[in-house]
Amino acid sequence: MTTNVNNSEGKKKWADKKITSRAENYSKWYSDIIKVAELAEYGLFKGSMIIKPNGYAIWEIIQKTLDEKFKETGVKNVYFPSLIPERFLKKEAEHVKGFSPEVAVVTYAGGRRLKEALVIRPTSETVIYEAFSRWIQSHKDLPVLINQWVNVIRWEMRPRLFLRTTEFLWQEGHTAHTTEQEADERARMMLNVYKDFVEKYMAIPVILGIKSETEKFAGALRTYTLEAIMQDGKALQLATSHNLGQNFSKAFHLEFVNKNNTVQYVWQTSWGLSTRTIGALIMVHSDDKGLVLPPKLAPIQVVIVPIWSNAEMKKLVVKKANSIKADFKEDGIISIKLDDRDVRPGEKYFEWEKKGIPLRIELGPKDIEKDSAILVRRDTGEKKSVSLENLKKEICKILDEIQVNLYKQALQFRNNRIKSVDNWKDFKKEIRDGNFVLAHWCGESKVEAKIKKETKATIRCIPLDQKIEQGKCVYSGKLSNRRVLFAKAY
Amino acid sequence: MTTNVNNSEGKKKWADKKITSRAENYSKWYSDIIKVAELAEYGLFKGSMIIKPNGYAIWEIIQKTLDEKFKETGVKNVYFPSLIPERFLKKEAEHVKGFSPEVAVVTYAGGRRLKEALVIRPTSETVIYEAFSRWIQSHKDLPVLINQWVNVIRWEMRPRLFLRTTEFLWQEGHTAHTTEQEADERARMMLNVYKDFVEKYMAIPVILGIKSETEKFAGALRTYTLEAIMQDGKALQLATSHNLGQNFSKAFHLEFVNKNNTVQYVWQTSWGLSTRTIGALIMVHSDDKGLVLPPKLAPIQVVIVPIWSNAEMKKLVVKKANSIKADFKEDGIISIKLDDRDVRPGEKYFEWEKKGIPLRIELGPKDIEKDSAILVRRDTGEKKSVSLENLKKEICKILDEIQVNLYKQALQFRNNRIKSVDNWKDFKKEIRDGNFVLAHWCGESKVEAKIKKETKATIRCIPLDQKIEQGKCVYSGKLSNRRVLFAKAY
Repeated sequence: MTTNVNNSEGKKKWADKKITSRAENYSKWYSDIIKVAELAEYGLFKGSMIIKPNGYAIWEIIQKTLDEKFKETGVKNVYFPSLIPERFLKKEAEHVKGFSPEVAVVTYAGGRRLKEALVIRPTSETVIYEAFSRWIQSHKDLPVLINQWVNVIRWEMRPRLFLRTTEFLWQEGHTAHTTEQEADERARMMLNVYKDFVEKYMAIPVILGIKSETEKFAGALRTYTLEAIMQDGKALQLATSHNLGQNFSKAFHLEFVNKNNTVQYVWQTSWGLSTRTIGALIMVHSDDKGLVLPPKLAPIQVVIVPIWSNAEMKKLVVKKANSIKADFKEDGIISIKLDDRDVRPGEKYFEWEKKGIPLRIELGPKDIEKDSAILVRRDTGEKKSVSLENLKKEICKILDEIQVNLYKQALQFRNNRIKSVDNWKDFKKEIRDGNFVLAHWCGESKVEAKIKKETKATIRCIPLDQKIEQGKCVYSGKLSNRRVLFAKAY
Repeated sequence: MTTNVNNSEGKKKWADKKITSRAENYSKWYSDIIKVAELAEYGLFKGSMIIKPNGYAIWEIIQKTLDEKFKETGVKNVYFPSLIPERFLKKEAEHVKGFSPEVAVVTYAGGRRLKEALVIRPTSETVIYEAFSRWIQSHKDLPVLINQWVNVIRWEMRPRLFLRTTEFLWQEGHTAHTTEQEADERARMMLNVYKDFVEKYMAIPVILGIKSETEKFAGALRTYTLEAIMQDGKALQLATSHNLGQNFSKAFHLEFVNKNNTVQYVWQTSWGLSTRTIGALIMVHSDDKGLVLPPKLAPIQVVIVPIWSNAEMKKLVVKKANSIKADFKEDGIISIKLDDRDVRPGEKYFEWEKKGIPLRIELGPKDIEKDSAILVRRDTGEKKSVSLENLKKEICKILDEIQVNLYKQALQFRNNRIKSVDNWKDFKKEIRDGNFVLAHWCGESKVEAKIKKETKATIRCIPLDQKIEQGKCVYSGKLSNRRVLFAKAY
């Protein structure tokens, strides 16, 4: 079949990709960034997400970096079935209460109705700990330190790309230990692995803390969390690490013979980080011109845009650009792209700005005459002429500067948005204004629920570095001995 | 809860792990290898598989190696939802016929019955090509070259670990092109990427060919395949690459405007390799002592077993062993493990032999005195004393030799088992004896079905390198102009 058509879709696509400003509509801005940077899109049914090449390349860097850090701590990867017999999900009472409203259930398979329904994993504690009960008999089998990189399904009725979708990708680590102390140390160790990664690679400053009883993981003794602030003042939880105590080990009979030849239950942890973090990455650093990526998480760190006005000049600059690219490829330290399409340079600048490439090299005949090139930073827009001789050194230096600058900017933004308040009126005002609030809380879940109902703010965490300080609960007036962090959250 | 127990499970475990010989029971031998090497085990319901750390580490090497090779050809990774609305699976007529008996179906999610049932992907052509229909408008959008590393579900009623399980891991590549020729070139290119990987890394010789109409992928125009022989003479398909023609592009309206401004359908390919290959890896190289791994796919390539008879000697040899290990770690070329547990050396040898570590270093006080160590090959059992000075060089050399030797051995085995036959009596005999048979076939599916019914042998492929040769079909006596490869298969 062949039909003549008016081929104007190239132009139309271009015009379609306008970005709403943050001030105008923050939520629309977020969607626009994902669209213009071609990171992801919705799938065939409500809440499903397709992660496109540009988005998945970021996830690959996250995976690779974290996976190495996990392995350095002795963790090994595994794969467990994605389907869990329903009765196993029910073994830990709190756990099933937390997850059963969100699961997807397989009732038919291989052309027949199943005798027992299978749930697609919303998380894998139950299926993994059943295996642990076979793997662990003696203290010699401990600790068990495993992790898996998998898809999970949690049925989400208010979808947002990366933040809340019916399916997402994550890693889930699961460990078993001989003592409570060792388990808690592991939970904190993994929290710190996440912290290092999020701060040093994602350039996002985080607050480390413990979740309240209401907000903790369904089945955990204690949930450690990393909380970050987005540009609209809302909080986003970047990763959690759970001290599971013996809750699951009792439900799954995870007993072992200790050194004194007595039988006891193991102590456990689980910890996870998901594709949600890409949502945070977008919301912390990007601007009204498009995506901004910290160099350490940018699949392409540098783009070369050669400039020419005739065929002869094109040949010259593209040749030079290619030799620069080849030079970088050899080292393998910096990932570089050459854009030599027959498109106006201005359009290219615009496109790569939208897509978040940290650094642009502009290379025209005049630059080559002077043996130099122009470097343009995505984060500040700053331009600089650099001699080709110093190009590599200069680029490495600037990429480092961008990485540091993005973190600093985010830290400054966050510090400006943390407010310490001591009365209910101020509390409501600061939450309304999109701030993080440090306030005294009496520790009662009822009070926590009332605060949430009246302000939509939740306790993000009880910060780990918070000092003991006598005070009165901002809502109930009851005594409290430390401040906790409140915010509206994604 | 604490109870006294008689701690004898260590000993029991040991005794349990006897390996059935291949001669005695090949199928039991296969299961035993997986068990003693701790590669995988069955999960909570029939046919489900848990891939344990030792097995998953092999898959990680497969992933990393292939992924780099894919990317070198311009392929980018993505992630598509695992759930597919039922009606999409039905869009390509052959495709739905092929897969609908095997799918798992989600009918409830988020606490409600779904309006439309969702099928867990058995493969993702349908969901991916729906997206292609939005991504592709002009020839400028082509080619599209993507891949995803995911889990898939195909309900298997006769499960075997790695070979047939309800769920397995794989990569599925999907491409779209402007011309039929370009698509076919891509399908063959990916077949050759697989071939290189399987031969050079897995050390498994393969026969490249085209599937018969009966055996081809449901929805393909033409399926290219890699076939290998296992030690019991059965064939195992290691990977397939499909030229999909325009079958899916017509079903999914994948039209584009070509350079002449006319609209036409794209040409497509898809190609995949799965955790099944680990089954082949086991069955081609392993022996009655346990797993044998080619060095390039061994998560641990070398194990150091220090030998001592008292505490002082232990200190000395373990110190030396540690310095050897550290020296290797620095390069990062060879992965090495030091086993300094308080266990008899003989037990350690036995254990690492079972687990398939290609090379063992034995290091005792006498060796240290002589500034040397004993190297023991897993494949041949050969022992050799090597001076510590030359250790690294010698180890690299021997690992290369093992890699080459395993391939050679497998090639020789296969060549001995390929029989060219010209009559039905010989055909039946050779198939019964567990051989690969090259025979003439008239090209009729009916005849193919009868041969399968009478001998259980199927056409593995029409080999690509087979010469034109006039002959008569071994079953029907009709004219044929080339031999095809028959075998019983996994």
